[in-house]
Amino acid sequence: MKVTVNRKAHFNAAHRLYNADWSDARNATVFGKCANPHYHGHNYELIVGVKGEIHPETGFVMDMKVLKKLIEVEIEQAFDHKNLNEEVEEFKKLNPTAENIAVVIYHKLKPKLDVNLILTITLYETPRNFVVYGDE
Amino acid sequence: MKVTVNRKAHFNAAHRLYNADWSDARNATVFGKCANPHYHGHNYELIVGVKGEIHPETGFVMDMKVLKKLIEVEIEQAFDHKNLNEEVEEFKKLNPTAENIAVVIYHKLKPKLDVNLILTITLYETPRNFVVYGDE
Amino acid sequence: MKVTVNRKAHFNAAHRLYNADWSDARNATVFGKCANPHYHGHNYELIVGVKGEIHPETGFVMDMKVLKKLIEVEIEQAFDHKNLNEEVEEFKKLNPTAENIAVVIYHKLKPKLDVNLILTITLYETPRNFVVYGDE
Amino acid sequence: MKVTVNRKAHFNAAHRLYNADWSDARNATVFGKCANPHYHGHNYELIVGVKGEIHPETGFVMDMKVLKKLIEVEIEQAFDHKNLNEEVEEFKKLNPTAENIAVVIYHKLKPKLDVNLILTITLYETPRNFVVYGDE
Amino acid sequence: MKVTVNRKAHFNAAHRLYNADWSDARNATVFGKCANPHYHGHNYELIVGVKGEIHPETGFVMDMKVLKKLIEVEIEQAFDHKNLNEEVEEFKKLNPTAENIAVVIYHKLKPKLDVNLILTITLYETPRNFVVYGDE
Amino acid sequence: MKVTVNRKAHFNAAHRLYNADWSDARNATVFGKCANPHYHGHNYELIVGVKGEIHPETGFVMDMKVLKKLIEVEIEQAFDHKNLNEEVEEFKKLNPTAENIAVVIYHKLKPKLDVNLILTITLYETPRNFVVYGDE
Repeated sequence: MKVTVNRKAHFNAAHRLYNADWSDARNATVFGKCANPHYHGHNYELIVGVKGEIHPETGFVMDMKVLKKLIEVEIEQAFDHKNLNEEVEEFKKLNPTAENIAVVIYHKLKPKLDVNLILTITLYETPRNFVVYGDE
Repeated sequence: MKVTVNRKAHFNAAHRLYNADWSDARNATVFGKCANPHYHGHNYELIVGVKGEIHPETGFVMDMKVLKKLIEVEIEQAFDHKNLNEEVEEFKKLNPTAENIAVVIYHKLKPKLDVNLILTITLYETPRNFVVYGDE
Repeated sequence: MKVTVNRKAHFNAAHRLYNADWSDARNATVFGKCANPHYHGHNYELIVGVKGEIHPETGFVMDMKVLKKLIEVEIEQAFDHKNLNEEVEEFKKLNPTAENIAVVIYHKLKPKLDVNLILTITLYETPRNFVVYGDE
Repeated sequence: MKVTVNRKAHFNAAHRLYNADWSDARNATVFGKCANPHYHGHNYELIVGVKGEIHPETGFVMDMKVLKKLIEVEIEQAFDHKNLNEEVEEFKKLNPTAENIAVVIYHKLKPKLDVNLILTITLYETPRNFVVYGDE
Repeated sequence: MKVTVNRKAHFNAAHRLYNADWSDARNATVFGKCANPHYHGHNYELIVGVKGEIHPETGFVMDMKVLKKLIEVEIEQAFDHKNLNEEVEEFKKLNPTAENIAVVIYHKLKPKLDVNLILTITLYETPRNFVVYGDE
Repeated sequence: MKVTVNRKAHFNAAHRLYNADWSDARNATVFGKCANPHYHGHNYELIVGVKGEIHPETGFVMDMKVLKKLIEVEIEQAFDHKNLNEEVEEFKKLNPTAENIAVVIYHKLKPKLDVNLILTITLYETPRNFVVYGDE
């Protein structure tokens, strides 16, 4: 049986919800105040879950120090104190909804992990809204 | 792959645990102080999870504004500041345990959602006790 | 200089807001859905703060085990799983608002403490509403 | 003796730390990544505390429904989903640090309250950083 | 369809990460400061999830009072205020990582539960690190 | 008027409650399971509050980056993943109760701050027990 280890991290970013194929009026209608062209922002709280077998020698599924460092390098350095729409390559043509941010985080971390590990991304956009995406 | 979006909500209600087919003595034995005929109450914290494909145009599985409004109309207006046993039709013959409340919430929300969406209800009766019920 | 030690506890209770000197209509106007005659309820989260000198032999302002037990006997046994209006003597003629509950808790605990200790009561009626009352 | 009632609220906003009297280089040196000209953002969590005597007829220091509405009208409508630097008058010439935002919130709410009430503003910029400002 | 009921509990313990088959130097290299021979410690927060059918007479999957008592007897009395490496039989030859502690808790509780119930253990070693282990 | 800025930090440590002037029996009687000679441990959550005037040029009472770094150097490096009784000089003859740890933290930080700043230490030993110590 497999165990999931989870590590919490966080980043603060500005964004707006915006579909470049639509008129500004349609963006405002669909996305409401989230379409504000001057941006708003969030404290994103991220939980990265990695599921696998316990290594018998270490008692670890994955060394949390390694996972913590991986999240810092791949996610926090890329997203923290950034404007997601303006400064993060993945969102130049992709609307930075919580759903899409979680999928992007998944694809940034997945290739860095052992292929036998099962990855789940939980992303809180606010304490009241969160999304989950992953291999299961 | 599918993404789950989750929205938190809350309602405050009175209830007692009670099986009308049993004597008062048996209710007191089985349910203890939760059977108090004068009622007690809780701040219920509710998480509604909806899983589905991301719509390519919006980046949403489901518009959170719509989900928030749906929870307000279907659940908060029905349960908030109510006595569940006395004032909520579903519990007139059903014991309002956390388990049964979660199942009732599920059945109130399920028909209002797109048929392709997968629904999960998480209900905290207290910060220390919670239940989960849904399609998966 | 003095140190404050704080202990968290909790109780679940039903109540309604009600002034017996007023008509039902006026109660409904002033207290809204909180005046529901069938009651509603809360998970009250309580923080009891006790400020004083550190005893040089123990390193304690007050033994937390003693404070925990005192809160159990004086507050939890009196209020937990009760209807405050119907079953708690202090609220038979006093409206059980969060403010009044905090003052009642203060007066139940104060005489049980060493006279040199400074007492502060913090009471969360919900995670979004709380009150503070005490000697400072 | 007086009781403090506290109400939690929240708003999501973009901002940057910036002193218009300084060069961009000095802004970058002093404020680091917080000076990012593309902005970043936060979920601000706000606690408004109001201290006063309990009204004997209502058992309230201040009706929480009134306080909740006041925060919505004065603070949430002004700040939520806004760019504080670009769209909020008070911050056009004032650096929107957590400290300054708390002071601005204080001055927006203070004139709307009964003169006998004591006001305290607690503002969480992130779950790890918060500020407190008020009459005591 | 089945419902999961969850109960939170907690215990405070000392531990160190250590593989007795390795040299001290290798332990220090792999486990870093967690290998400190003088120990360090944690407030472990435990969530025990039990999934099954709702009993039609009680409305319970499992009586929470029974589950709470079971956790107290089997887990809290065994682990609370203990040194896991020195005083808990299961960890005399097993490295007390969060992963291994979760597996041990699972095996202590599983035989005490009705065979039809599905068990999941969630264990927070810190507010930022947690593991999940169970039947699903 | 002055503003308080607060920064959260954390460290994980082992300790036991113990008065070296007492017999083991008396230590066991007074401190109960907290006197366990094999130690137990906690995730200490620390809030450092610094109160002062807002600097008109920066909008800061104190740069949070500086405060965060100061806590890392003075407190986290000294206490994290340590056995407080065995490895921290201040507790070799001082019982490491939460009260005493807060006072020690205060005295480590106070001389590093501008003399006009008012310092308050809040220390959570568990999510249910915390202490406050400082200049006000």
